[in-house]
Amino acid sequence: MNDALPSSDQGAAGPLIPVLAVVGVGLIGGSFAAALRQAGQVGRVLGVGRNAQSLARAVELGLIDEAVAAEDAAARADLVLLATPVGGLKDVLSLMLPRLAEGTVLTDAGSTKAEVVEAARAALGDRIGQFVPGHPIAGAERTGPEAADAGLYRKRAVILTPLPENSAGSLDLVRRAWQACGADVFDMDADAHDRVLASVSHLPHLLSAVYMEQVATAADAHTRLDLAGSGFRDFTRIAAGSPEMWRDIFLSNRDAMLAELAGVRGVLDRAERAIADGDGEALLTLLDTAARARRNWRKE
Amino acid sequence: MNDALPSSDQGAAGPLIPVLAVVGVGLIGGSFAAALRQAGQVGRVLGVGRNAQSLARAVELGLIDEAVAAEDAAARADLVLLATPVGGLKDVLSLMLPRLAEGTVLTDAGSTKAEVVEAARAALGDRIGQFVPGHPIAGAERTGPEAADAGLYRKRAVILTPLPENSAGSLDLVRRAWQACGADVFDMDADAHDRVLASVSHLPHLLSAVYMEQVATAADAHTRLDLAGSGFRDFTRIAAGSPEMWRDIFLSNRDAMLAELAGVRGVLDRAERAIADGDGEALLTLLDTAARARRNWRKE
Repeated sequence: MNDALPSSDQGAAGPLIPVLAVVGVGLIGGSFAAALRQAGQVGRVLGVGRNAQSLARAVELGLIDEAVAAEDAAARADLVLLATPVGGLKDVLSLMLPRLAEGTVLTDAGSTKAEVVEAARAALGDRIGQFVPGHPIAGAERTGPEAADAGLYRKRAVILTPLPENSAGSLDLVRRAWQACGADVFDMDADAHDRVLASVSHLPHLLSAVYMEQVATAADAHTRLDLAGSGFRDFTRIAAGSPEMWRDIFLSNRDAMLAELAGVRGVLDRAERAIADGDGEALLTLLDTAARARRNWRKE
Repeated sequence: MNDALPSSDQGAAGPLIPVLAVVGVGLIGGSFAAALRQAGQVGRVLGVGRNAQSLARAVELGLIDEAVAAEDAAARADLVLLATPVGGLKDVLSLMLPRLAEGTVLTDAGSTKAEVVEAARAALGDRIGQFVPGHPIAGAERTGPEAADAGLYRKRAVILTPLPENSAGSLDLVRRAWQACGADVFDMDADAHDRVLASVSHLPHLLSAVYMEQVATAADAHTRLDLAGSGFRDFTRIAAGSPEMWRDIFLSNRDAMLAELAGVRGVLDRAERAIADGDGEALLTLLDTAARARRNWRKE
């Protein structure tokens, strides 16, 4: 996972990002810094965070060069990645605004985009053009600076949901930064992003957790869990994810979640009816559509 | 996976099963034969099946010594494993009954047990004591004799649901055969088995397939599948399973499936309400119960 990334973009003009700041130096932010450093595309890296011990560890690990306050990052950095929970974004941006340099480009890594854009507009006002909303679709169970991995974004998708106010230059900087991390960058409308992510990321988490809760609270939970096998293992892996993080994501993406859930319930109703009626043909059609789609999905 | 299994049970008296017959020499039946042969616990292995080419391949692979008719297997074998779809069991047993030797013990590998027991009683009448219902909880995406693997059952659970008519000797033979394959053998009541399996095996398959069908038939399915990541990959892996096999399992285990599905729907209703109401506390409690249970589940 740590193969060197090409650094051919670094010409005589120096790195793409002379000063990078990362707010939240954990898995997401730390990996971004590590990947850009490995690609030779950053000069100095500033780290912002509430946990001093964690920031000190990030310095030790070489992820950041120094820990600074959010205001200082806003004043000094060419690019700031906000890798904080969606719920805390507005406060951090408000803190940054008074000292936000004109040339500083802000971007984020939040899992939902409509709410993020709303919060950023509220915090930044007429400086909103400096904020390019983004979402790297990558993650892992691990957290903290130790989890940072320069290879985390290689061949992973990063979605940008550009605002009308974004300058071509700001958008280009963010795009090139992610590409330097090895990612494939896509542009989408924020609502489309939220709908698609509700479908392929948030809903599987909800269904896996709902199912797991039902099993775990059954009177014979012990026997069930003893006899569960490899299908169960894979189906429930994501249910182990951070409850706080997923609560925030579900609430942040409420409308899209409810719409997608209604869609899945419609199919579940059909399946349940087919089982109750002993309708093997309807059941087979449904299972066959699912199996074909899964088998044809990108080769792993 | 092919470590030699201990064969210390084979004393001067010869192998545990002088003549073994396997009906359906695919992944399940072929692996049973291979494991017992590797353990030195079988003399001759007979294979029964409808596909002559597949049986010839099983002989080539050394899984079976000869292909025979079901009736001959009933007359000659000490132990017969019926590794056929649950729906075909009654017909095979009816075919065997006229020539079933008194000393022959029959067992099966069906994923549901109440229906299997009913079918076996109907086919065997007062010879039902010779049939010991069983279910090895092991499987894989692969099928056919090529998929057979002597290590498939190592450290996997095999559940027996003994009948009052089973003799201690018959039950013991089946138990020792599975133990010789490296499996952990549990006894359960057939209804409890069906309920637990509906919960930890059948329902995850149904939910995964239902979800996958909804994604695959969405207008923007292409975009969704393009942006799906590792959570999606694991959550939907089981949706690729054989539609015919799972249709049969769902219908065979209808009552338990519907009962467990009602339980999961109850939790889903709570989760949906919490999202709709923005009730972060209720959502967190639910997600936390699930995450704790999954993290505490057997270490993988």
